[in-house]
Amino acid sequence: MSYVSFAAGKPLDFVAVGRLCIDLNANEINRPMEETMTFTKYVGGSPANITIGMSRLGLRTAFIGKVADDQMGRFITDYLERNRISTENVVTDRTGAVTGLAFTEIKSPSECSILMYRDNAADLLLSPLEVREDLIAEAKLLLISGTALAKSPSREAVFLALDYAKKHGAVVAFDLDYRPYTWTSREETAVYYNLAAEKCDILLGTREEFDMMEALGGNPGGDDRVTAAKWFDYAAKIVIIKHGKEGSIAYTRDGASHRAKSFPAKVVKTFGAGDSYAAGFLYGVMQGWTLEKSMEFGSAAACIVISSHSCSDAMPTAEAVEDYIERCNRGEITATV
Amino acid sequence: MSYVSFAAGKPLDFVAVGRLCIDLNANEINRPMEETMTFTKYVGGSPANITIGMSRLGLRTAFIGKVADDQMGRFITDYLERNRISTENVVTDRTGAVTGLAFTEIKSPSECSILMYRDNAADLLLSPLEVREDLIAEAKLLLISGTALAKSPSREAVFLALDYAKKHGAVVAFDLDYRPYTWTSREETAVYYNLAAEKCDILLGTREEFDMMEALGGNPGGDDRVTAAKWFDYAAKIVIIKHGKEGSIAYTRDGASHRAKSFPAKVVKTFGAGDSYAAGFLYGVMQGWTLEKSMEFGSAAACIVISSHSCSDAMPTAEAVEDYIERCNRGEITATV
Amino acid sequence: MSYVSFAAGKPLDFVAVGRLCIDLNANEINRPMEETMTFTKYVGGSPANITIGMSRLGLRTAFIGKVADDQMGRFITDYLERNRISTENVVTDRTGAVTGLAFTEIKSPSECSILMYRDNAADLLLSPLEVREDLIAEAKLLLISGTALAKSPSREAVFLALDYAKKHGAVVAFDLDYRPYTWTSREETAVYYNLAAEKCDILLGTREEFDMMEALGGNPGGDDRVTAAKWFDYAAKIVIIKHGKEGSIAYTRDGASHRAKSFPAKVVKTFGAGDSYAAGFLYGVMQGWTLEKSMEFGSAAACIVISSHSCSDAMPTAEAVEDYIERCNRGEITATV
Amino acid sequence: MSYVSFAAGKPLDFVAVGRLCIDLNANEINRPMEETMTFTKYVGGSPANITIGMSRLGLRTAFIGKVADDQMGRFITDYLERNRISTENVVTDRTGAVTGLAFTEIKSPSECSILMYRDNAADLLLSPLEVREDLIAEAKLLLISGTALAKSPSREAVFLALDYAKKHGAVVAFDLDYRPYTWTSREETAVYYNLAAEKCDILLGTREEFDMMEALGGNPGGDDRVTAAKWFDYAAKIVIIKHGKEGSIAYTRDGASHRAKSFPAKVVKTFGAGDSYAAGFLYGVMQGWTLEKSMEFGSAAACIVISSHSCSDAMPTAEAVEDYIERCNRGEITATV
Repeated sequence: MSYVSFAAGKPLDFVAVGRLCIDLNANEINRPMEETMTFTKYVGGSPANITIGMSRLGLRTAFIGKVADDQMGRFITDYLERNRISTENVVTDRTGAVTGLAFTEIKSPSECSILMYRDNAADLLLSPLEVREDLIAEAKLLLISGTALAKSPSREAVFLALDYAKKHGAVVAFDLDYRPYTWTSREETAVYYNLAAEKCDILLGTREEFDMMEALGGNPGGDDRVTAAKWFDYAAKIVIIKHGKEGSIAYTRDGASHRAKSFPAKVVKTFGAGDSYAAGFLYGVMQGWTLEKSMEFGSAAACIVISSHSCSDAMPTAEAVEDYIERCNRGEITATV
Repeated sequence: MSYVSFAAGKPLDFVAVGRLCIDLNANEINRPMEETMTFTKYVGGSPANITIGMSRLGLRTAFIGKVADDQMGRFITDYLERNRISTENVVTDRTGAVTGLAFTEIKSPSECSILMYRDNAADLLLSPLEVREDLIAEAKLLLISGTALAKSPSREAVFLALDYAKKHGAVVAFDLDYRPYTWTSREETAVYYNLAAEKCDILLGTREEFDMMEALGGNPGGDDRVTAAKWFDYAAKIVIIKHGKEGSIAYTRDGASHRAKSFPAKVVKTFGAGDSYAAGFLYGVMQGWTLEKSMEFGSAAACIVISSHSCSDAMPTAEAVEDYIERCNRGEITATV
Repeated sequence: MSYVSFAAGKPLDFVAVGRLCIDLNANEINRPMEETMTFTKYVGGSPANITIGMSRLGLRTAFIGKVADDQMGRFITDYLERNRISTENVVTDRTGAVTGLAFTEIKSPSECSILMYRDNAADLLLSPLEVREDLIAEAKLLLISGTALAKSPSREAVFLALDYAKKHGAVVAFDLDYRPYTWTSREETAVYYNLAAEKCDILLGTREEFDMMEALGGNPGGDDRVTAAKWFDYAAKIVIIKHGKEGSIAYTRDGASHRAKSFPAKVVKTFGAGDSYAAGFLYGVMQGWTLEKSMEFGSAAACIVISSHSCSDAMPTAEAVEDYIERCNRGEITATV
Repeated sequence: MSYVSFAAGKPLDFVAVGRLCIDLNANEINRPMEETMTFTKYVGGSPANITIGMSRLGLRTAFIGKVADDQMGRFITDYLERNRISTENVVTDRTGAVTGLAFTEIKSPSECSILMYRDNAADLLLSPLEVREDLIAEAKLLLISGTALAKSPSREAVFLALDYAKKHGAVVAFDLDYRPYTWTSREETAVYYNLAAEKCDILLGTREEFDMMEALGGNPGGDDRVTAAKWFDYAAKIVIIKHGKEGSIAYTRDGASHRAKSFPAKVVKTFGAGDSYAAGFLYGVMQGWTLEKSMEFGSAAACIVISSHSCSDAMPTAEAVEDYIERCNRGEITATV
C-alpha cells in the first residue's frame, strides 16, 4: 500500500532547503578533542547530507541554501556540483557571514559529541525572496530540516518553501534535526516546529525531538500514538519516531505501525546515522517500496555511514546498500557496537 | 443567518492578546506636531482599544499582555481595571522595557499621523509561558492583532494563544492592524500574517493590509474575492475588507458579500476608527445580529470615536451607539469630512 | 587669579557636544506620574540646556549633535536656532532613530524623578566623521557631557572632539552628567569617564558622580581632595564637586578650595539645577571673574530655573541673574525648600 | 644607551593581555584553501604567540585572557601551562562563547591569507573586573594588543590593565596587531588605538597600522618621523615602524632612528613573523641590549618561525636564535623568498 504519491513527470526528484556547513572530523579518534591535533574537512549539515545521499542513490536533486563568500562556501558549492546536485538556488551571502562549522569529537564509537560554530552562519541568512518557486515547482519531494527554522530570515524562507510545495503539489518531508544552538527557548522551538509540521506529509524524528515539540502540552506521557495521531489531523501521512537502539517505528494514517529489522555494523561513530537513514528511507518510498523495505534500506545505508570516518562523503550508492544487505544476510558482517 | 457560533456557558465573552501602550494626543491640533506644545495621555494600542470598547458595550472582557514596570505601565493596568477588564493576565515586565508610545499629529481631520516609540516595548516581550490557557479556555472570542506578531517572543505567544483557542473552542478574530515599525521586511510580515490568518475565523483589515499579506504572490490584481476565497480554504468564515471612504465589505463562506450604510460625523481625527468599528461589529456578531446590522453598529461606534479627542477613552456604550444611529436617522447629525 | 585662560579672537565663545532631547514635563504636579494626564514639551538634555543657558547669558554658541528625522527633531533644531545657537553641526539621523524623551515626575519639590526613553536615541548616533573640526577650532570653550560617552559611535565622536579641542587650543569643560541608562556596567562607565576626564580643564560633578569614576579604586574614602589631586596630575585646572544642599566646592591646582554663598528659592522642582549652575559658572569664568563670584552667579541662575516649570526654557539672561542676586540681597526672596 | 628601564626585583618578567585563539593551519599547502582537506590545530593569537615566544626565550611569563568553556579552551590553557606560562588569570567564559579560529591559507610562501571566526569569541568577553591588579603589579613588562580593543568589555579590560601598569611602574608595549574583523569603522579603530597608544612606552606596528591610527588626520603623508614624534609627546620611548621587506626602523625620543640587518630564510609562510619579531626584540630590550642587537635578534627569531608550519609551536629558544644568527653569519643559510 502506498501512503504518499508523487507527481509524475516532474524533472526533479528531490530538493532540500536549509543548513549547509562544514564538518571538521577528528583524525585521531577514541580520545577527547583536546588531544586531537588534526581534522579533515567535509561538507555537512543534515539536509545537505541527505541530498548527497539521494544523489548517490541515483535521484535527480537540487539544494536551496546560502553559503559564505569564502573558501569554505566555494568548497561546499563545488562539492555539491561534483555530486551532480543542482546549485542554481545555492545563494552566496554578501554580508560577511561565515560558514557554520561542526568539529566532531569521537571518544569512543558510542561517545560522540559536536562542537558547533553557528554564530553569524550564512545558511541562516537565506531570505524568502531568494527561494525559487520554479525550482520547487519542478520537484516531486521537498525536504525541510528543523535547524533552518531556528532564526530569521531562514525561518521565513522555509515557510515560504512550504507554501510553494503545497501550491505545486510537492510531497514535503520534515527531518526534525533539532539542535539546541541558535534557538532562544524551548517554547520558541516548539511553536515553529509545530507550525511547520502541520504542513508536512512525512515527519521523521527521535522520540526526544517529538517530546520537544510537545513541550507546550498535549502529550505528557510521550506516547508515540498520541504524537502520530496529532499530525494525522493535519497533513501527515507517515510519522517515523526513532527510539535509538530499540529501532524506529513508522506510524501511518490507517492506524498501522511498521518496523523493520536492523543490521550489524562495525561502528566508528554515530554521526550521520540519521541523515543516511532518511536518504535511504525516502529513496525507498519514492521507489514505491513498502515502508518496511524502505526502512530496511535506510537502516543499511546508515550502517555504511557509521562504519566510516565521514558523513556526507560516505553516503552509499544503491548498489552499495544492496550489497551491504546481502552480506549481512550471508552473515559476513557481524560486529555490532 | 449566523456565520459563526459562540460556545454557550463560558464565563468570559471576550479576551484580546497583544499591544498595550500609551497615546499622547496633541492638545493643540490642526497644525504640525512641531507646533504642538502639550499632549494628553490615554491608554492605546489597537487590541487594548477594542477590549475597552467591548467592555463599554457591556461584555465581560479580559486582556493578555505585558506592561512596563513604571508609571506608564501602572496607569495602563489601573485604567483597564477601572473599565472592568480583567488584568489577571496582564504581566509586568522586569527587564527594564518601556511602554510603547504613540504621539498623534492632527494637521487636519483628514491628515493625521503618528510618531511611534516601539524600541524595547514591554508588550512585545510577552512570552508563550506567560499566556494563561485557563483564561482562553473561559472565553467565547479571542482577538489577536498583527502588531503582536512583529517580534519574538510576543509572536510565539500569539501562536500559542491560537492553539489554546482552537483546543478550547473559542472563535478567533484577527484584526490585521499592520504597522511597519518593528518588522524587518515585507516578506517577514507576510509569512507570519498568513500563518496566523490560516487559524482564524474572522479577519478584519484594510485592502492595503491584505495586499501586504499577498506580497509573496497569489493575487496580483488585489481582488477582494480572491483574497476572501483563499481564507475560506482555511478556517475563515467572515472576511471584512475595508476600502476607506468607499466603505467596508464583509465576505462570507457562502459566496455572499455584505455592505452596510455609513453615517455622517463631525470628524476631529481618523485615529481609532478601525478599533471602534471592530468593537461594534464583533459586539453585533456576538449578539447574533445580521452582518449588515453588526457592520452598521460598528460604523456608528466609529463615528463617535472620530468625533472625539481620544480613542480608548471615547469608546461608547451600546446606548450611545444606538442613540447616535437614531439621531442620524432623524437627520440631526449631518456634518461629514 | 585666573585658573584657565581662553584664546582671544575666536569667533565662538562656546560649543557643546552631546545629548539633545525632549523633556515632557508634568503639568499636574505634586502627585505621582500615574495621575498626571497632560505634559508640556521642552527641549532637554544637559549639554543642550547649558548651551541655551550660555546663549541667554549673551555668548556666541553652537551645538554639535544629532537629531531624529521627525517632528521632535525639527522642533529641537528650530528651538536652538530661535535661541541664536548655531545648528550648522546639528546633523539629522537617517536610520530611523528616535528623539530621546524624559518624562518628569514631580511628587513634591524635593521628590522628583525622570522616566527616560533612550532606546535607539538619535543623539547617541553622532559619529566621529560628523564632528566638524572647523567649528571646534573657532570656539574658546568646548563642553562635553557624560551621557554622550555611553555608547558608540557617540562615544568616539566625543573623543575626537577632545582631540580637536586640544589641537586648536580650546578649553574643555566636562559636565559629568551620569545617567545609568544605556551604560552596560559601572566598570565600563568608569573607564570612559576617566579617559575623557584626563583631557579636560574643568570638571563639574556631584560627589556621587566622582565616586562612580573611582569605582575601580584609588579613593575608597571618597575624599574630595584625593579626587581633585588625581585630575591635577592630568590636564585639570578646576574641579568642582557638588555636595547637594551642603553646596559646591571648587578645587584648584594651587591647592586652594573655593566656596560661594547660596540663595533662597521658591522651589518647584530640582531638575535643571545642575545645568543652569554650569551655565552660570562657566559664564563667570569666561568673564574673568573670581571662582567665588562665578559660583555665586551659577547658584543664582540655578535658583531661577528650579523656581520654574521647565529647564531649558527657564534659562535666565545675565540681567535676570543679577536682578535675582540683588533681590536676595535686599531680602525680597526668602522661601527655601 | 637604554631607552626604557625595567623595575628590578619583580617576580614576573612579562605579562600579556588579549587574544587567545586557535590556528587551524593547512596541511596541504601551496594551493587555495578550497583544495586543502586537513588542518592542524595550534594555539594562536598575537599576544598568546608573543607570550609563548617570551617563555621559550627563558622569561617568567603570565597571560591575562578568557577562553571558551569547551575543548578548544581547555587545549589552550593546557598548552600555555605546558609552556610554563602562568594561567592564573586565564578566565573561563560561562556564557557559551566560542574560541576564535584562524584557518590559514598558504597559496605560496608570499601569498598567505587567513579565514577568521571571531563572532562571539570568548577572548573579547574579558571584563575589567576579571583583570588582576596583583598580577600586573608583579610584572616588569605588560604587552597589550590591538585586537583586544575591538569590542567591549575586552576594550575596557585593556584600559584598566594600562591603569594598573602605570600605577605599579610596569613598562607597557603595544603591538598594534590591527585586524579589520570585529571593528565597526576605521574611525572607531583610530579613536581607541590612539587612546591606548598615549599610555604606552613601546609601540610596534606596520606602516599601514600607523596609517590607520592617523585616519582622522595629522599625518596625511604617512611620514614615519611625524608618526613617532606624536607619540613622544605622550609616554612613548621607542616606536618601531615596520616596512615589510624594506625592514623595520626603531625611532627613539632622542631623535635617533635605528635599523638592523636582516637574515635569509627558507620561507614556508609569512604568518607569525610579527609575533616572533616582537618576542625577540622585547627579550633583547629586557636584557639591556642595544636596539640594533635587539632588532637583529627579533629578525632571526622571525626567520625561524616563517620557516616552520606553525606560529606558536615554532617559537625558538634563545639558543636556537643565536645558532640561527651564527649559521647565517657562516653562510649556511642562504635561501630567501
